[in-house]
Amino acid sequence: MDRWQAFTEVPAYPRLRKLAQRPFDLTQPHSLTPQRIARYRCSAAGFDLLYATQRIDDEALDGLQQMAAQCRLLEQFRQMRSGTVMNRIEGFPSEERQVLHTACRDLFSGHPSAPLATAQEAAELERLRLFLEQLQQGQITNAAGQPFDTMIQVGIGGSDLGPRSVYEALQAYRLAGRNAFFLSNVDPDDAAATLRKVNLATTLVNIVSKSGTTLETLTNETLVRQALAAQGLDPARHCLAVTGQGSPLENPARYLRSFSMFDSIGGRYSASSMVGAVMLGFSLGMENLMDFLAGAAAMDTAAEEPELRQNIPLMLALLGIWNHSFLGYPTLAVLPYSQALHRFPAHLQQCDMESNGKSISRYGEPVPTKTGPVLWGEPGTNGQHAFYQLLHQGTEIVPVEFIGFRHNQYNQDLVVAGTTSQQKLMANLLAQALALAVGQDNANPNKRFPGNRPSLLLLADRLTPATMGALLALYEAKIAFQGFCWNINSFDQEGVQLGKVLANRFLSLMQGEQDLDERQTSVEYALLKQAAVI
Amino acid sequence: MDRWQAFTEVPAYPRLRKLAQRPFDLTQPHSLTPQRIARYRCSAAGFDLLYATQRIDDEALDGLQQMAAQCRLLEQFRQMRSGTVMNRIEGFPSEERQVLHTACRDLFSGHPSAPLATAQEAAELERLRLFLEQLQQGQITNAAGQPFDTMIQVGIGGSDLGPRSVYEALQAYRLAGRNAFFLSNVDPDDAAATLRKVNLATTLVNIVSKSGTTLETLTNETLVRQALAAQGLDPARHCLAVTGQGSPLENPARYLRSFSMFDSIGGRYSASSMVGAVMLGFSLGMENLMDFLAGAAAMDTAAEEPELRQNIPLMLALLGIWNHSFLGYPTLAVLPYSQALHRFPAHLQQCDMESNGKSISRYGEPVPTKTGPVLWGEPGTNGQHAFYQLLHQGTEIVPVEFIGFRHNQYNQDLVVAGTTSQQKLMANLLAQALALAVGQDNANPNKRFPGNRPSLLLLADRLTPATMGALLALYEAKIAFQGFCWNINSFDQEGVQLGKVLANRFLSLMQGEQDLDERQTSVEYALLKQAAVI
Repeated sequence: MDRWQAFTEVPAYPRLRKLAQRPFDLTQPHSLTPQRIARYRCSAAGFDLLYATQRIDDEALDGLQQMAAQCRLLEQFRQMRSGTVMNRIEGFPSEERQVLHTACRDLFSGHPSAPLATAQEAAELERLRLFLEQLQQGQITNAAGQPFDTMIQVGIGGSDLGPRSVYEALQAYRLAGRNAFFLSNVDPDDAAATLRKVNLATTLVNIVSKSGTTLETLTNETLVRQALAAQGLDPARHCLAVTGQGSPLENPARYLRSFSMFDSIGGRYSASSMVGAVMLGFSLGMENLMDFLAGAAAMDTAAEEPELRQNIPLMLALLGIWNHSFLGYPTLAVLPYSQALHRFPAHLQQCDMESNGKSISRYGEPVPTKTGPVLWGEPGTNGQHAFYQLLHQGTEIVPVEFIGFRHNQYNQDLVVAGTTSQQKLMANLLAQALALAVGQDNANPNKRFPGNRPSLLLLADRLTPATMGALLALYEAKIAFQGFCWNINSFDQEGVQLGKVLANRFLSLMQGEQDLDERQTSVEYALLKQAAVI
Repeated sequence: MDRWQAFTEVPAYPRLRKLAQRPFDLTQPHSLTPQRIARYRCSAAGFDLLYATQRIDDEALDGLQQMAAQCRLLEQFRQMRSGTVMNRIEGFPSEERQVLHTACRDLFSGHPSAPLATAQEAAELERLRLFLEQLQQGQITNAAGQPFDTMIQVGIGGSDLGPRSVYEALQAYRLAGRNAFFLSNVDPDDAAATLRKVNLATTLVNIVSKSGTTLETLTNETLVRQALAAQGLDPARHCLAVTGQGSPLENPARYLRSFSMFDSIGGRYSASSMVGAVMLGFSLGMENLMDFLAGAAAMDTAAEEPELRQNIPLMLALLGIWNHSFLGYPTLAVLPYSQALHRFPAHLQQCDMESNGKSISRYGEPVPTKTGPVLWGEPGTNGQHAFYQLLHQGTEIVPVEFIGFRHNQYNQDLVVAGTTSQQKLMANLLAQALALAVGQDNANPNKRFPGNRPSLLLLADRLTPATMGALLALYEAKIAFQGFCWNINSFDQEGVQLGKVLANRFLSLMQGEQDLDERQTSVEYALLKQAAVI
């Protein structure tokens, strides 16, 4: 593999460092002009990006474009899409895998970047289409001959957050009478609460686990199977699986169907693979699922646009680098002005922080700068009545990515005080970006707004399957570009291992598998005892 | 009013600054001993706090205790509870209000700190008790004589997040057949989705707004009233209000009942006032509501304990100051190992960030240090499969407050691989605190865990109405103590005003209320146009 360079190693870096000492001042008179707003704007795959309210100017944008070229970001993205082994740490044992989530939706151009991976996925989608048809036509039913109307997805992490956030976003597009629930936490109350809501007799249970051995998922599967059996239902007739090839979940005696997920697709990038597709196909129908995949594919293509000023994912990535690595803001808020996107920040939290929360380069060296930020967010306008006080007047500067839609999903709205709710929503969205940028002086210091708090606006006409797919792919590409800049492996997650090992140590202590001598010096035992758990 | 001193102005400050240069190293052999774990522990109001996994030692704890004394934190807390006007900025126009959320639950000792406020609240609770009895006995029904079984709470910010997070936490304690929904966002899709879920004929709508003029709430009220009328239902028979005295919502012709909220209780501190009580009383019953209030009252009392090492809220506050103001960590993660607490971090986001996201002291001077951190969180174990990678191996250090319970709420659990789900949940919780603290070396740099990442454990036997009340009050007190340290007014929210003003400007532009000349130079118009909203 080529030796890739971190952004700190290329000529653009010192220049950008210098520019970052005096970032564009949004609070000066005539800083934020109509001309600037019109120029700092680009469009792709159904989205418009407005970034005039960033602390950036043409010179810094040129510097970022040079940095992108010098780091060969687009070349790396194309290599990723075409199947280069990007999930690796050179010189050390690592996962050594391709990174091919984009292949799951590369179904529409006729010339996919990774033909084999796309063909595999297309075959799984065809199996899904047939299965959904059989459900629709009553060829597959429960033992009493009733159609299935509900799906519980059992999975955790990437098998939960991505699919769940997409489902929540697209509830307005559900097939009549179909719905989905999610079961993820090992907390037994999560399962108890979910099982109270569904009629198990007409429920399909979709177990999603690549290895088939994830502790939480295994536990919740067992729990749901017991609940099915307790109602006299045959689990093998109700359970599906999405799993890696060769896993114990590929077992026709125990599962009505098993669909495949592949090693080249990481959990947090898997929402557009069968990990999301089975549940989305069931609840939204095959047509909406294909629209979702087509939206994602369109954004993947848009991410290969060479001109920074016309490439939304790359621009989002580099503005993020500018804010985090050059201006030093430690967090990023993603604030969707759409209640349907209420779980999207939680998905991004995984996708971004698990990908780029790293301290080691792709060559096993400590990174010289900060890597991924803390990402958080809640829907607006709710957030305005919650934490926006800190955004406007706090001592922590929080860059914001606003997401909004010009039209709502349901055709229900009303005029109050001369405007519709949808108009109020958009007015609030734009007002927040403006207020954060320009601030406001006041003789009363407590009513002063310092301004110069960067934000950007991501806008589309409506939250549809296609724009949801594009939005998902936009952030996946952004995260990959940022990882390339920092020269880290955005596709592994070694940082979750130690907790698993220690949890097992606690569990064996709880089971009494340690003698008295060991206990007296054991930190684990002391924690269990002081926590009054044993 | 006394002149209060910020923590930077008292003698303990320089000493703590010095100690913070070499914080306790958790990764050294024999740093985290059974003895330390046993000593760094305290208990109050049903909770145990374990803080051995903080980067703190006895000397720094002594310094913090001195700082607390020198800043007179407990005296300020007692003054707050007894009705001193704490919501003010000296020398400038400000809200000039008492801060008496603690009075809402000071019902159990026989000698309340603020007798008048407590008597007012007790009278409202008595009105609520009578109303609930009338519902129970069928004296109040819908026009068809059917009992009400559902409540939609319409409110935003403090009228939504606190009550909703408590309701979600206590679903296991719902009265049979009773449930609640929440409507907050001005996004019309939020209302459409909620109205699809309920049978309006048997639904009470609880409109919560202190002024009766909050735009989102007014809009959603109108929308729900239209939906009621469209089904031939009389809104006056279905709508309740919780509102300030003299507000337009105190109108028996339009509301079945109006309950009072008082100026001395800020929105984000109002979950234990009628803002939460009406919905909680309806859905959980009066007995559970009183248990919830009693738990909160117990924690309020515990917050007056003079010895830092026995005062959980004060310890939480000062460890937070240590991590944020002395060690410089910009964010705080609150991670409950309980799915039922899944909305509690969102409530804390408002309660903490709206309170302490300030830049001006109580004397109108710019603060010399950072104030409130960015607070975020999701339930474990889900988070472990999401963003914990960054917590363990990222370049951002994130102090963590873990919350856990020894027993689950529902009596449903099962043994898989030798342990129950509840045991797995606790094992994971303890394992994460330990892993973050001590880390682990490895020849493979990508498998190295640096450790020294501070966390604490808040543990109770079970999440019940009483422990939920205590948990709510614990964080309210913590936030107040921190505001006192930073010498800021934690009880106003001037930072939300500018956005409101600008939103109205956008709305008038959308309605065409500006002439062409103005438009050409208007930044607002340019934003609307480039956003393709008009």
